Amino acid sequence: MARIAVVAGDGIGTEVTAQARKVIEAVLPGAEFDDYDLGARFYNRTGEVLPQAIQDELALHDAILLGAIGDPSVPPGVLERGLLLKLRFDFDQYVNLRPSKLWPGTTSPLAGVKPGEIDMVVVREGVEGLYVGAGGVLHKDTPAEIATEESLNTRHGVERVVRDAFARAQRRERRHLTMVHKTNVLTKAGGLWARTFAAVAAEFPEVTTEYQHIDAASMFMVSNPQRYDVVVTDNLFGDILTDIAAAVTGGIGMAASGSVNPERKFPSTFEPVHGSAPDIAGQGIADPAAAILSASLLLEHLGHHDEARRVSEAVAAEVASRTTGTSLRTAEVGDRVAAAL
Amino acid sequence: MARIAVVAGDGIGTEVTAQARKVIEAVLPGAEFDDYDLGARFYNRTGEVLPQAIQDELALHDAILLGAIGDPSVPPGVLERGLLLKLRFDFDQYVNLRPSKLWPGTTSPLAGVKPGEIDMVVVREGVEGLYVGAGGVLHKDTPAEIATEESLNTRHGVERVVRDAFARAQRRERRHLTMVHKTNVLTKAGGLWARTFAAVAAEFPEVTTEYQHIDAASMFMVSNPQRYDVVVTDNLFGDILTDIAAAVTGGIGMAASGSVNPERKFPSTFEPVHGSAPDIAGQGIADPAAAILSASLLLEHLGHHDEARRVSEAVAAEVASRTTGTSLRTAEVGDRVAAAL
Ligand SMILES: CC(C)[C@H](C(=O)O)[C@@H](O)C(=O)O
Ligand SMILES: CC(C)[C@H](C(=O)O)[C@@H](O)C(=O)O
Repeated sequence: MARIAVVAGDGIGTEVTAQARKVIEAVLPGAEFDDYDLGARFYNRTGEVLPQAIQDELALHDAILLGAIGDPSVPPGVLERGLLLKLRFDFDQYVNLRPSKLWPGTTSPLAGVKPGEIDMVVVREGVEGLYVGAGGVLHKDTPAEIATEESLNTRHGVERVVRDAFARAQRRERRHLTMVHKTNVLTKAGGLWARTFAAVAAEFPEVTTEYQHIDAASMFMVSNPQRYDVVVTDNLFGDILTDIAAAVTGGIGMAASGSVNPERKFPSTFEPVHGSAPDIAGQGIADPAAAILSASLLLEHLGHHDEARRVSEAVAAEVASRTTGTSLRTAEVGDRVAAAL
Repeated sequence: MARIAVVAGDGIGTEVTAQARKVIEAVLPGAEFDDYDLGARFYNRTGEVLPQAIQDELALHDAILLGAIGDPSVPPGVLERGLLLKLRFDFDQYVNLRPSKLWPGTTSPLAGVKPGEIDMVVVREGVEGLYVGAGGVLHKDTPAEIATEESLNTRHGVERVVRDAFARAQRRERRHLTMVHKTNVLTKAGGLWARTFAAVAAEFPEVTTEYQHIDAASMFMVSNPQRYDVVVTDNLFGDILTDIAAAVTGGIGMAASGSVNPERKFPSTFEPVHGSAPDIAGQGIADPAAAILSASLLLEHLGHHDEARRVSEAVAAEVASRTTGTSLRTAEVGDRVAAAL
């Protein structure tokens, strides 16, 4: 039976994660949950972000259900690098999965774009590129200071994420895959990505392919997001593109994500894209939709395809049934979705 | 008197540049123009992108008026790197200037956003960061291949562009400057940018400041572009952000740009953001608005403030007067703008 580590985290993280867990319990009775207290409160109390002993325990789980971490009391970057990115790297979560869909009942800021018209998945590389932390600083705080950041890319790392993206595209209706990079300027990493993409494409003759520079893709995400089916790109470009994709599908309210180790050698992390939102924490008014959709990605990853589909359909139905003007209660949303299953 | 080198380039580049030149002639009688044949046609004929002798001649001008370069017959990247980027680097064009305005008569793809509501300038660093071409490839085309890209950043380079952005913000009505980076992940370059930004801010007490991560900024560009006044950011982030800014202000039809050496030690290049559009080239139907607005930036840079303002107002009036359904003729737009001056 699935063993799930729950890192509810800070702020509204705890509130929305409770609903995601409730929904998993409803659809997968017998799933086991272990709670881990990590995040800003833990850091402020202990001075540690992720003790090795806890990480070793997390490693024994099938997946990690994460809420949100962060609080103004913690210096920016500390928890992101020490927890989120550390898990991605140490657990080799090389597929960062971010679906963006304009759901019925939600509104795009784009004029005339209707629910159902946007439906894409961005497959972002998760453990290479500019996120590796390579580089340095010389003559800090003097006029002679220089600072470097190095993007490291391997054929091994690019090939496996590109192949994963092709396989996902192959399973979808439109079977279209767009690769995004900046090959005209970043010729070295771009060349590696382009050649690898072309090589892997030969294994998937049914998938149509396209290449776009990151600047053009960022523009098309706004002018014509309907054109995308699956997108594969590097770590930093994926960070940016997925936020634009979230914006055009109405913001991060429905944005789910998974940091996935496809081989399941290590646990994968599933979390809503939104943050801990300290301003509305504790009021029971945070929308748990993105957290529950992240639970659906978790179920999918663990092979519970039918359950995953039922959960995302139940969320979609709940969101579509909302009446404007009625204020949302976090627990009620979770209850309604769980009851529908 | 102003000596302007004209690099009309390929496709619609030649058509729109003729109008931009016509407008400069109308507003600045006596300006001298020298034509340089560069771009895809030149490259296909000679095998060279930018001969040193031509570059030496370009260097003797006050500014370069560029149309658009590129054609499917030339491998991607060759002209971009050999001409556009080479000029930026060799002529130390460290301020890459990109205003984005939602003009009367144009339509944003964003629902409910009205002309006048978006009015920002992105000051993109032009000669550092990931654009320097540092990095390498090992074991190319083998399973062991690695490829690196290195972002190089100096206090010297960051400080001068940040100061330029502050000075621009200071001259504008809202006096607000947003710095965009990814300090939580790119801690080395991000730290340099953040510390430099804070130091220069002390010289401009009247300018209010804000910091955003590139992913958040990309989202806000869609959900709330009205919030931006002046934005300063690094080379690659600026490439991406300015294309989103162009998208939300109705596409690249009105997107002008300048690659500027503020000290005027070297000539600055002014060009529309759009490309050579081979599909509509030669038909006389390309919109020269962005090219003429780039000429306005050129005039501004050369100290002809009044002329610059008159040109951009004339373009705005021409665009606002367009009636939907009427097909546009490139030369007529230029004639109307020139006549209004
Ligand atoms: C918090 C931050 C390190 C992270 C990232 O940059 O990947 C976030 O923006 C995300 O997209 O998950
Ligand atoms: C053509 C390309 C090299 C260039 C860039 O990346 O700077 C373009 O996208 C731009 O924004 O001017």
